[in-house]
Amino acid sequence: MKAKEISSAVTKRLPRYYRYLSELKEQGTERISSKELSERMQVTASQIRQDLNNFGGFGQQGYGYNVEHLYTEIGKILGLYKIRKLIIIGAGHIGQALANYSDFEKRGFHISGIFDVDKNVIGTEIAGHHVYGMEELPEFVKREKISIAILAVPKECAHEIASELVDLGIVGFWNFALVDLKLPDSVVVENVHLEESLMNLAYNISVRE
Amino acid sequence: MKAKEISSAVTKRLPRYYRYLSELKEQGTERISSKELSERMQVTASQIRQDLNNFGGFGQQGYGYNVEHLYTEIGKILGLYKIRKLIIIGAGHIGQALANYSDFEKRGFHISGIFDVDKNVIGTEIAGHHVYGMEELPEFVKREKISIAILAVPKECAHEIASELVDLGIVGFWNFALVDLKLPDSVVVENVHLEESLMNLAYNISVRE
Repeated sequence: MKAKEISSAVTKRLPRYYRYLSELKEQGTERISSKELSERMQVTASQIRQDLNNFGGFGQQGYGYNVEHLYTEIGKILGLYKIRKLIIIGAGHIGQALANYSDFEKRGFHISGIFDVDKNVIGTEIAGHHVYGMEELPEFVKREKISIAILAVPKECAHEIASELVDLGIVGFWNFALVDLKLPDSVVVENVHLEESLMNLAYNISVRE
Repeated sequence: MKAKEISSAVTKRLPRYYRYLSELKEQGTERISSKELSERMQVTASQIRQDLNNFGGFGQQGYGYNVEHLYTEIGKILGLYKIRKLIIIGAGHIGQALANYSDFEKRGFHISGIFDVDKNVIGTEIAGHHVYGMEELPEFVKREKISIAILAVPKECAHEIASELVDLGIVGFWNFALVDLKLPDSVVVENVHLEESLMNLAYNISVRE
């Protein structure tokens, strides 16, 4: 299974497959045809077959897909069964909401700590996670072997912090700061740019008016 | 200017142009060539020219773009200068973070209220916004002429609430619930699916390992 060769258009659809399979599993569905899955997901059955064929022959003619098996395999492809340690930088409103976000552990992500510059929050706990001062960052990241950082900091300081973290060995960022981070190609950045999303909403409403 | 005829590939890039122009404005830059803008944004100068030509002749040969003018025009196209009233459904961690999100007002969005089912939060204020009970929703939406709802509720109840809101006249949703809302085509849905974003991050890290 050579996941590296699969186009990003396909791999970006995998989380959605995974989500629908998770719901089917919860409902106790054992198998599903590409036709039924296509009706639920509102994509064509042929796209589903093509997408999943990239990862080997999960479906069987006349049987469809085994839900549990396909769910597990897609989870493996997505890399969800490895434990990854992450830290949250910034204990503001977004950082707090994410610290309380319960899906991390379910997906193999372990929050090891939260970092902030505000003396009023350093030393407190948020959703059971300790808040450290930024000066503790270098030693912490190395000692705890942290690989991922969530950036929930103002855009003005996001780039400087990200660069420092890359030097410390961080390989992936979930970036909530509204800035395009310019980092080495080996570093993965997944952006959540809320303001741009909000503008898309405004635009799509305004063209319908 | 017929914004309706422009492809969504182009319009999805507008918020990013808007953001870069906003930064240039803050820095006091009065004009910029497509070449300079392309270096900052890391897209080709010809793409910038093509994209912006869709909206008329903003650039002038040998002069470049007037930053203030282009910023204002893109803001108009994005529909950011109209006041739109919105409500937040769900006063959990995400709802609270969004209530504290300061960029709404800057972009023409006015938070009129927050709604929840939890008796412990109903009647309180979050970031200066009153929390109402869900039973007050129908009358409130009509009286206050609310057009947009932010869904920050569990996925299990998102669809039922969204359908009710459409019946009440809501035309746009910023949806944080991890569910694909099936609503009439006239309704705009902008999804922020955090869990899928997190899975993309996991996948992209895992293929590099």
